[in-house]
Amino acid sequence: MSKPLILVTNDDGITAPGIRNLVEFMNEIGEVIVVAPNSPQSGKGHAITINQTLTFEEIKLDGPQKDYSLSGTPVDCVKFALDKILPRRPDLVVSGINHGANSSINVIYSGTMSAAVEAGVEGLQAIGFSLLDFSWDADFLQAKEYIQNIVRKVLLNPLPPGMVLNVNIPKLLKEEIKGVKVCKQAHAKWEENFDERINPHGKKYYWLTGYFNNMDKSEDADETALSDGYISVVPVKFDLTAYEYIPKLEQILEI
Amino acid sequence: MSKPLILVTNDDGITAPGIRNLVEFMNEIGEVIVVAPNSPQSGKGHAITINQTLTFEEIKLDGPQKDYSLSGTPVDCVKFALDKILPRRPDLVVSGINHGANSSINVIYSGTMSAAVEAGVEGLQAIGFSLLDFSWDADFLQAKEYIQNIVRKVLLNPLPPGMVLNVNIPKLLKEEIKGVKVCKQAHAKWEENFDERINPHGKKYYWLTGYFNNMDKSEDADETALSDGYISVVPVKFDLTAYEYIPKLEQILEI
Repeated sequence: MSKPLILVTNDDGITAPGIRNLVEFMNEIGEVIVVAPNSPQSGKGHAITINQTLTFEEIKLDGPQKDYSLSGTPVDCVKFALDKILPRRPDLVVSGINHGANSSINVIYSGTMSAAVEAGVEGLQAIGFSLLDFSWDADFLQAKEYIQNIVRKVLLNPLPPGMVLNVNIPKLLKEEIKGVKVCKQAHAKWEENFDERINPHGKKYYWLTGYFNNMDKSEDADETALSDGYISVVPVKFDLTAYEYIPKLEQILEI
Repeated sequence: MSKPLILVTNDDGITAPGIRNLVEFMNEIGEVIVVAPNSPQSGKGHAITINQTLTFEEIKLDGPQKDYSLSGTPVDCVKFALDKILPRRPDLVVSGINHGANSSINVIYSGTMSAAVEAGVEGLQAIGFSLLDFSWDADFLQAKEYIQNIVRKVLLNPLPPGMVLNVNIPKLLKEEIKGVKVCKQAHAKWEENFDERINPHGKKYYWLTGYFNNMDKSEDADETALSDGYISVVPVKFDLTAYEYIPKLEQILEI
C-alpha cells in the first residue's frame, strides 16, 4: 500500500517550530508536502486574498518532505496547494502545531483551524493541532505520540465529509497528560480592552488586547478537559445553520 | 420609549453605497452609529488585527448618524465600537448591505457576516444583509421595506443569545421579490482556479479566481430560495461543534 499523502500547513508561518515538529511527526506516517504562509498569519480567521496577488517559492528545509512558502493566508495555502502544488488530492490535511490555544471561541479567529475547515469544505480529512504554550521554544515533543495516534486513527476511520477535528493539547509533560477527551466548543469570549497610545506625531493609535472569559464550566466543554489535563478533540463543521431555531424564526418573521 | 441604538458596519468600506443605503434605512428606525473599515475588507472572514495597530477618525457624511472609519477588519470594527466608541451596548448591530452574495458557504469567508457573528459572540442582536449584485451602482432601494421589516421584527422579538441572521436579497425589483424564506445554509463550494501570470521581472504570480458550485438543490437551502426569487434568512450560530458526531468520534479515537 502506498503511503498516505499529507498536506501540512499552519498560521504561524512555515519556519515556526510548531509546524517543523508537526512535519517531523508526519514524515513517520506518510509522504509530506508543506504549503504554509511565508509570514505569521495568526488571527486571520477564514480570510482569503482577493485584492492582492500571491507568489510562492519552494524552500529547502531538513527532512524528506517538500516545503513551499506562500505569500497568503492559511486558507489561501489550502486552496493553492490543491490547485497548483499537490500531485493528487491528499489523504489528510493537518494544520499547526499552533503556538497557543485554539479551544472554545478561538476556533473562529484561528488561521490554523480555518485552514482545517477549508480542507473540510473541500471534502478532505483534516485536523488542526494547537499547544497551550505561546512560547517559540515550547516543547512539542511531549504530545508526539498523542498526535500520531489521532492521525493514524483518522486515516483508518475517515471522518464524514465536511467534518474536521480541533485538537488542543495542554502544556504538560507526556506523563502528566491524562488522555484524550471528545468535547464541545466551550462557550467563552474575549473581553476586549484596546490599549490607547500616542504616536510621535501626537495621533492616537490602538493595540487590540483583552482577557479570555470562559463562561462554560460544563463537564463536556473543551476548556474543562484542558484544565483537567486532557487533550481536547472537538468535531467541527462549517454549516453554521442553527437548525433548531428555524421554526421559531418563521414565527417571528411572520412567514 | 427611547430610540434603539443601532451600530452599522460592513466589509466594503465606510463609503460603499451598500452601507450608505443601510444607514439611511436605519436612520428611520433608531439612533445610528457607524463604525466601518476605511478600506475594502471583502473576504477577510473573521480576521482580527493582532500584529498591527489601529487608528480611527470621525468623518462627516450626510445624515443624522455619526460615522467613524477604522483602519481594521469588520470584526475589529465591532470590537472597537463596543470598547471605545458606543455610549452604551447597542440594541442591534447590522452589517452590509454587502455588494454581492453571502449565501451558503460564503458565510465563512465574508467580512460582512463575520462582523454580525462577532456581535453574536458579544451577546448582541445582529443581522448581516447582502444583495446579489456586485455592481457599485446596485439598486438597494428595492429591498428597503423588507430590510426595515426584518429589523423591526427582530427588535420586537430578540433572537436567542449568540444567534444572528444572514439575510440575502435577490437582484430583483421590489414587486418581483416573492417574499422572505427562512432557510438552511446550502452545501456549496468554490472551485478554485488560480490565474497564473508573469510579472515584468519574469516571476510568476497568481490571482485567486474560481466558480461557485452549488451541490445542494434542496427546497430549504438558501440558494434555492434566492433562485426562486425569495429573500433568504438563515439563522447562524458560532458554535461549530458537530454534536451529532461526538459518540462516533469517541469510538474512533477508542476513548
